[in-house]
Amino acid sequence: MTDTFILVSHKLCPYVQRVAIVLSEKGMAFERVDIDLAHKPDWFLKVSPMGKTPVLLVKHQPIFESAVICEYLDETVSPKMHPQNPLERARHRGWMEFGSAVLNAIGGFYNAPDEETLSAKASDIRAKFEQIEVELCTGPYFAGKSFTMVDAVFGPVFRYFDVFEQFEDFGFFACTPRVHAWRAALAARASVQGAAGPDYPASLRAFLLARKSALSNHIPPPPHFPEYILPT
Amino acid sequence: MTDTFILVSHKLCPYVQRVAIVLSEKGMAFERVDIDLAHKPDWFLKVSPMGKTPVLLVKHQPIFESAVICEYLDETVSPKMHPQNPLERARHRGWMEFGSAVLNAIGGFYNAPDEETLSAKASDIRAKFEQIEVELCTGPYFAGKSFTMVDAVFGPVFRYFDVFEQFEDFGFFACTPRVHAWRAALAARASVQGAAGPDYPASLRAFLLARKSALSNHIPPPPHFPEYILPT
Repeated sequence: MTDTFILVSHKLCPYVQRVAIVLSEKGMAFERVDIDLAHKPDWFLKVSPMGKTPVLLVKHQPIFESAVICEYLDETVSPKMHPQNPLERARHRGWMEFGSAVLNAIGGFYNAPDEETLSAKASDIRAKFEQIEVELCTGPYFAGKSFTMVDAVFGPVFRYFDVFEQFEDFGFFACTPRVHAWRAALAARASVQGAAGPDYPASLRAFLLARKSALSNHIPPPPHFPEYILPT
Repeated sequence: MTDTFILVSHKLCPYVQRVAIVLSEKGMAFERVDIDLAHKPDWFLKVSPMGKTPVLLVKHQPIFESAVICEYLDETVSPKMHPQNPLERARHRGWMEFGSAVLNAIGGFYNAPDEETLSAKASDIRAKFEQIEVELCTGPYFAGKSFTMVDAVFGPVFRYFDVFEQFEDFGFFACTPRVHAWRAALAARASVQGAAGPDYPASLRAFLLARKSALSNHIPPPPHFPEYILPT
């Protein structure tokens, strides 16, 4: 282990991505170690009391919980991503937690056992986007021109929808134009783009198919090579 | 509404209690407004985007999420309750999150539908206490002589067991003497004592009976006044 930050990761974990985005925004080099959450190694359970990713190893010492890691990085590595005013900073931290609630709603959507629940969970997500809509102002980011911690949280939230929309248009953003524009601004940001690997869409698709939930039935089969272009 | 802090509360909510403890430790006067979470008033949903308690109203502005409120108070009101060293502070914040995981495990225990699940959930809680046991040192508090944010989180955690033990000895602390001693030290602290009302044990008992879960069957009937002391 070196003095470089080591980010203990899972390749689909949105909480890992938010830390990767913050590290990138702060220009910090880091090494990413992916683990298999279905077969957690012993050393992982020693550094992650709740058995979850991410963990950031700083000079051999583990920091667990993504929100905690983000605070540590903002306290110790410039530039600051939180607002300077304590009350405004508290508002940002609250909306970061709201981002976690949206992630839970997304989990409810992709785990829905039947069409009725799938539809209800999609409504949950749309209702949450409507709550965010009124918090957004001029853009392009959550609080205006500066990219903040709330943006780091929502980049990975919106990434799910890039994959869902490959299956079907669920109309998630139909009534929330500001959220839609925010999503586009985040998708264009280098730190957000770099926080997941190029295999993310295919891996998420495989993960969603394996859930055998209502959403799995909406996933079209992979593209088929017609016989005429097969090698003879 | 005045300039006093207003703590929007529910009388059984452990997350409210952690904020009440922090306010008390910092010597801050505050007004407590209890709401009925089963019938949330409209004004509450406007200040609490996730519909949860606590919310702290500071000069008309709401701060939601207990961890966020604790950070705000530690940044703006002395004395500091977090450690000075950023890495140590991150460790404390991580164990605060672990406290929330213990609260989830407690919810799993009192909602267990049958005896088998009840027993498994009790084991979950004991396993979590074993994880904490190795983090505790000389006491009396989490980090030694100073009362910190982690203590504010675990005071309300342990309060549940004062009530559970009125029903039965589930042996939650049998293998974790340091956690047991920590629990006693927190129960003796004025801020912890004051964070819940005198009707807390009776209200929690009524709440647990109404769950109609496996635990409800372990709750003995209320003390009975024998006829000879009834007024004639």
